[in-house]
Amino acid sequence: MNDVRAAAPLVTAAILVIGDEILSGRTKDKNIGYIAEYLTTIGIDLKEVRVVPDEEPEIIGALNALRNRYTYVFTTGGIGPTHDDITADCVAKAFGVSIDYHPEAVTLLKANWAARGIEPNESRMRMARIPAGAVLIPNKVSTAPGFRIGNVHVMAGVPSIMQAMLDEVAPTLKTGVKLISETVRADLREGDIGTPLGEIAKAHPETMIGSYPFVDDNGQPNTNLVIRSRDAQTLAAAKRDVEAMLVKTRAHYRKSA
Amino acid sequence: MNDVRAAAPLVTAAILVIGDEILSGRTKDKNIGYIAEYLTTIGIDLKEVRVVPDEEPEIIGALNALRNRYTYVFTTGGIGPTHDDITADCVAKAFGVSIDYHPEAVTLLKANWAARGIEPNESRMRMARIPAGAVLIPNKVSTAPGFRIGNVHVMAGVPSIMQAMLDEVAPTLKTGVKLISETVRADLREGDIGTPLGEIAKAHPETMIGSYPFVDDNGQPNTNLVIRSRDAQTLAAAKRDVEAMLVKTRAHYRKSA
Repeated sequence: MNDVRAAAPLVTAAILVIGDEILSGRTKDKNIGYIAEYLTTIGIDLKEVRVVPDEEPEIIGALNALRNRYTYVFTTGGIGPTHDDITADCVAKAFGVSIDYHPEAVTLLKANWAARGIEPNESRMRMARIPAGAVLIPNKVSTAPGFRIGNVHVMAGVPSIMQAMLDEVAPTLKTGVKLISETVRADLREGDIGTPLGEIAKAHPETMIGSYPFVDDNGQPNTNLVIRSRDAQTLAAAKRDVEAMLVKTRAHYRKSA
Repeated sequence: MNDVRAAAPLVTAAILVIGDEILSGRTKDKNIGYIAEYLTTIGIDLKEVRVVPDEEPEIIGALNALRNRYTYVFTTGGIGPTHDDITADCVAKAFGVSIDYHPEAVTLLKANWAARGIEPNESRMRMARIPAGAVLIPNKVSTAPGFRIGNVHVMAGVPSIMQAMLDEVAPTLKTGVKLISETVRADLREGDIGTPLGEIAKAHPETMIGSYPFVDDNGQPNTNLVIRSRDAQTLAAAKRDVEAMLVKTRAHYRKSA
């Protein structure tokens, strides 16, 4: 372990996507990739994602598994006004707390509805039901709030609303030392470099080295190598070894071609 | 329970996406939505998705949880030639079987490499390592095969290759009675219809009714209602009730406007 890592422990996270519409393929999820990139940028390691249907035992089971294992959980979906929006109730059950109309949420929603000439019926009022002990997450897009309880952040499924909520949440999160990365284009096929790359990965256990094949602009199979570390010097050392290996391997393939 | 469902039991599935690059946000997953839609079309219910990093205990743990619970599991990612491609080894460990070079995979790959003038090094040969007892899944795009072992289908992460493999796998799968669906545009806000829609959902327990808000071409909040069932008559009855409710609710809101 290097000093940097010891000084700032890892901060981990999981995403729980809730919704039949994702599992049926009707709606294509746009939140996982967005949250993944966002968390990486602020120094939080996303370690797991689960997608579950709008079914109480599935939501509760997945939420409890994830919240006990990672620093933070971010849920998306199931906090609207209709019968299939059961996330808030499931979160309350998972935490073993009651759920009721939250005075601040009621005030916010009623003011918004009044301004728009909308009646506060039973269905709409569902959006003000918040588990006991939770703190509201503001929704600058459409008012109906998300909430945080313990280490769980409950957000909307609509991407524009989720993104606005994540901006509210981010400043409240503790973050780890940011993972920094360098991408090196190999100009070789993945299979050309697999063996020496594996040796470099073994020699640099504090970096993560990923190999991602792609087809380049000339229609040739090519490879991007991504080296990641929390320490700039560690990263630079691994990158030097990768580049030296690439020079040598390219020469070998030019000679044999 | 209706007769249709009793005659053809549900066929369920889970997807296990394996890859650090998805969790870091570097690569945006395109496989979940594709497989979800594909399975729905052929009458298989996708019930859960998990995304895990390239770490042995995570892959084995998730795979065993999913394969013991659902009819089928589909994995994507981690079957290339480099050190971070550990899916085949993890699947072998999860099933408690050995892993070795598969004669048919070796023959296929060597023929392909010979035709392209590529040397069969140790790294490339990793792609021929297949758990004992597994059956190959052909790869018409780039030769290196996937495989099926038990109820688990191990496929590539590159979308074009995964899609070709899924086409090979699909005819071998048992399928359930297809879920049919109807979408009704409400021309009302979600909060306008939540209460009566919940009553309809309760009165039609053999249908699944989902409510999906969207912003329409006039910039107005609108709602799509999706009614799903395995039986056409059951679906039609629920749809009639939804449409009658919409007519009544629209009249109410016109009057109060």
